[in-house]
Amino acid sequence: MGTETQSSSPRRRGRRPAGEDTKRALLDAARRGFAELGYDGATVRGIAADAGVDPAMVNHWFGGKEGLFTASIEIPVDPKQLVETLLSGPTEQLAERMVRTFLQVWDGTGGGAFVTLVRSASSNDNAAKMLREFISTMVFGPIARRLGVDRPEFRAALCGTQIAGIGLVRYVIKLEPFASADHDTVVAAVAPNLQRYLTGDLGTT
Amino acid sequence: MGTETQSSSPRRRGRRPAGEDTKRALLDAARRGFAELGYDGATVRGIAADAGVDPAMVNHWFGGKEGLFTASIEIPVDPKQLVETLLSGPTEQLAERMVRTFLQVWDGTGGGAFVTLVRSASSNDNAAKMLREFISTMVFGPIARRLGVDRPEFRAALCGTQIAGIGLVRYVIKLEPFASADHDTVVAAVAPNLQRYLTGDLGTT
Repeated sequence: MGTETQSSSPRRRGRRPAGEDTKRALLDAARRGFAELGYDGATVRGIAADAGVDPAMVNHWFGGKEGLFTASIEIPVDPKQLVETLLSGPTEQLAERMVRTFLQVWDGTGGGAFVTLVRSASSNDNAAKMLREFISTMVFGPIARRLGVDRPEFRAALCGTQIAGIGLVRYVIKLEPFASADHDTVVAAVAPNLQRYLTGDLGTT
Repeated sequence: MGTETQSSSPRRRGRRPAGEDTKRALLDAARRGFAELGYDGATVRGIAADAGVDPAMVNHWFGGKEGLFTASIEIPVDPKQLVETLLSGPTEQLAERMVRTFLQVWDGTGGGAFVTLVRSASSNDNAAKMLREFISTMVFGPIARRLGVDRPEFRAALCGTQIAGIGLVRYVIKLEPFASADHDTVVAAVAPNLQRYLTGDLGTT
């Protein structure tokens, strides 16, 4: 070992983490598995088998099934932790926490990650299904159900319209003065609307 | 002429409108021109020259510059007419008219046209710019300014978040029970929020 070791292929600069291929194979298999079977239907064992790796690698690389799911849709949050964080605090400020957290998470990626997410969902049915699963099964659905409000699924979807719309206008369309508005300005404008979707009167039809 | 006429290539069924090539060349040139110079900066003459056709063809095929713009972003409405329709009627029901019209227009395309629009905007900077232009210069901007409210550009963008979010959840993510909710149900839930963006108190920061 040492400087005298030379291979016929050029040496990579810097270190490459071990197991990148395993990780990538798991992510690819996860996208197929979750899209086909849904979050609840897909199993760690099945995804690992499809990827041709040991199921223990899922814990090793992603901390479990949920981490694998979120990594495979490239949403940079842990949904379970997110739900707990959002629900801790007064319910009447829940919407405010949601808007602020959304902006912190996605502004933190420079917005580009949200554009990627939207492009995937609008180009690929599987990606759209996974995003649907994320919203309904993992974040807004659980929140609405924990609030004990009427029509929780409809409220979860309404929250989805407002939150996804913020991302679309801020990161994809980049419409000013909204795209570069500071977080307090966005929260003051949007949170009361989102709060109505969570706990308010949705009207009758 | 007649049944005895046979060509070496198979005959197309039905009639093909004359000038399809001209139309396509104009649409391609329009996408380039509007993206590069904006709606106000691009000219019919310049776009026609880029397409290598007579400027009169723009009127012939698209009824003018505005029709060419909307055809080139594949939004199935005439923005000027849309603004007039929306603004005719009581201001306190403006949001209701906006939501209802949005649903009629895009449900009318089966939703697929909205998915295409989102895919373009998230894949291509020029398409994103054109959508931005459509929202700010042609629809929500003019409406907000005509209302004489404070912060018209910010309100226009907020309306954009809610309206685009409806489309994203209904047509792209297809999240139930929102995706197949009838128009009255969506209007009852969403219009009060949109109305606040148009004429309500947006909070201070």
